[in-house]
Amino acid sequence: MAAAAAARHSTLDFLLGATADCNAILKGLQPIFQQQRMTETIHSWEDHGYLATYTNKNGSFATLRIYPHGLVSVDLQSYNDDMKGRDKIDHILNKIEERMKELFQGSIKRVKRLPAIVRGDAIDRYWPTADGRLVEYDIDEVVYDEDSSFQNIKILHSKQFGNILILSGDVNLAESDLAYTKAIMGSGKEDYTGKEVLILGGGDGGILYEIVKLKPKMVTMVEIDQLVIDGCRKYMRKTCGDVLDNLKGECYQVLIEDCIPVLKRYAKEGRKFDYVINDLTAVPISTSPEEDSTWEFLHLILDLSMKVLKQDGKYFTQGNCINLTEALTLYEEQLGKLYCPVEFSKEVVCVPSYMELWVFYTVWKKRTEI
Amino acid sequence: MAAAAAARHSTLDFLLGATADCNAILKGLQPIFQQQRMTETIHSWEDHGYLATYTNKNGSFATLRIYPHGLVSVDLQSYNDDMKGRDKIDHILNKIEERMKELFQGSIKRVKRLPAIVRGDAIDRYWPTADGRLVEYDIDEVVYDEDSSFQNIKILHSKQFGNILILSGDVNLAESDLAYTKAIMGSGKEDYTGKEVLILGGGDGGILYEIVKLKPKMVTMVEIDQLVIDGCRKYMRKTCGDVLDNLKGECYQVLIEDCIPVLKRYAKEGRKFDYVINDLTAVPISTSPEEDSTWEFLHLILDLSMKVLKQDGKYFTQGNCINLTEALTLYEEQLGKLYCPVEFSKEVVCVPSYMELWVFYTVWKKRTEI
Repeated sequence: MAAAAAARHSTLDFLLGATADCNAILKGLQPIFQQQRMTETIHSWEDHGYLATYTNKNGSFATLRIYPHGLVSVDLQSYNDDMKGRDKIDHILNKIEERMKELFQGSIKRVKRLPAIVRGDAIDRYWPTADGRLVEYDIDEVVYDEDSSFQNIKILHSKQFGNILILSGDVNLAESDLAYTKAIMGSGKEDYTGKEVLILGGGDGGILYEIVKLKPKMVTMVEIDQLVIDGCRKYMRKTCGDVLDNLKGECYQVLIEDCIPVLKRYAKEGRKFDYVINDLTAVPISTSPEEDSTWEFLHLILDLSMKVLKQDGKYFTQGNCINLTEALTLYEEQLGKLYCPVEFSKEVVCVPSYMELWVFYTVWKKRTEI
Repeated sequence: MAAAAAARHSTLDFLLGATADCNAILKGLQPIFQQQRMTETIHSWEDHGYLATYTNKNGSFATLRIYPHGLVSVDLQSYNDDMKGRDKIDHILNKIEERMKELFQGSIKRVKRLPAIVRGDAIDRYWPTADGRLVEYDIDEVVYDEDSSFQNIKILHSKQFGNILILSGDVNLAESDLAYTKAIMGSGKEDYTGKEVLILGGGDGGILYEIVKLKPKMVTMVEIDQLVIDGCRKYMRKTCGDVLDNLKGECYQVLIEDCIPVLKRYAKEGRKFDYVINDLTAVPISTSPEEDSTWEFLHLILDLSMKVLKQDGKYFTQGNCINLTEALTLYEEQLGKLYCPVEFSKEVVCVPSYMELWVFYTVWKKRTEI
């Protein structure tokens, strides 16, 4: 993808202490735009203040919205992102800020200028959190971008987090996120030596790479998407090391398959694991289990996982963002509806690239009383 | 502060695969705005496409900017944030997205709808990172907001991070950020038992609270701003416990003073400490030491700190965001210009509420050869 120019959208807001004299503000700020030889169009409402639009010959434009309740919002958008253009925008915004401060003599409650939003750039830096907040990442390169039959797979380079795997728009894991892998492996409290482990999903190879170091008997990883493995093997090497270079090693195998039929097969065969680690992407964002098959899917996975789990085995999974309390509660309700009674604990972990705290679950079969 | 209504600013961008037929797009989208009975104003450029502005009787407005290079940007701003209004905006944006997809039949490279930006709200949720990225916090309450003679002091409540101390717009520390306090104390590798410790700044009480638990001989904390202590004592209790309830305890004292004269006094008296922990707010963001007194200040603090540090003592401080490499390099250059030769190590730490990785320094006097 060529590094096309993009539009920079700058904002500047003034929250006033009282209702605004809209006309005085408009009159006060007009000269700044006129000085830039911008063409003005004014729309006025009887009860809702003013909208002034300013267009520049070079294609940039500004809007000045004056709300009578005491909010003044300035927007400036320009294409062709050169430093000279940026300086010019800063200059205009500085002028507006100065003028507003003159007009209001210290009675402005808040002046807020956000970092400019870059729109339509070849590199997309905005990846909202699971709880819907706007966050900008320090992404400077698109490393991998493929559509598989299951999802869009992007690997983007972040200056501070290293390469980040993003599946259909969801930040999955960055090379900085060993904290995620550790958490979903039981936070260092488990002994994997000589154990049988089943990983559901986990195509980035992080869990597999870390467990293989711990001398397990056998790790089986079931990942549906070959293209995730292809991308991560190449570009997430801090996460997966060399473990994805071959789909089979001394103590592990990777099956490129849908995990549901695999789980059913294992359940039928009576195969049992010491650990089942569910690293599937399906995040239970939905909060209406009746209407959403996500919950049915989660329930099926959980039930089948319990069937292939030894009586004293442990099931680990990531849950959700700590703020999505409803979704977390509904997930915990699902745990009460499995074919066998289970107990669970949870842990809150800071995963560097997530920009939000994440809940991880440990589930085990309830010890039956003798 | 009353929970005043604010303006919601929604954006929707289409990055097209090729240059755009601006007129066809305008014609295609016009009916959607007309259906809302919005008043249209069109500005057209010879070489720069179109800007269409739409105003609604209720005071809301939209801009549609069509760039001939293949970017279409829609902005929608409305005051009075009720759910009905939100649904209406979503409805309009959905219609636009549908129509664009019809027009371009799968040749759109990217459709991007960011979480709406809330402008001029009583609670400000946007606190950019040190490296200038836009991030939205999950802030739901202004807990404390005071201007001291030194700075603006805010304590805001975040759903996931607990209360956050923000000094003059800089996110300082949240109740979730024990990782910060641990890092600036040497990451658990130091034995504070029976030691003399000097803390510069640290008004949130986090370091003091953690060190006092470790049975030091005496901790002296020098914080300039009584109002920071007042706010944190009340609202950052997960961080400071009860340690700020009194300015004097069995093994600690808090001096409400500028640390520079205190350091000078101690240096003159020949007082020495095992540990000096610099937790001052002055972040060396500037990258031009010649022109900025921040660097002189930093140098002075460092020099005086070395003077009051025992020969085998350690100096801990926070550095900067890992992305500000120039500022970090300049800081390290300062370390080479002190009155005595020093060595240093650094560590990168994920502080939950920071949304960026942070560098911490350990500095010690170079062992002189015998």
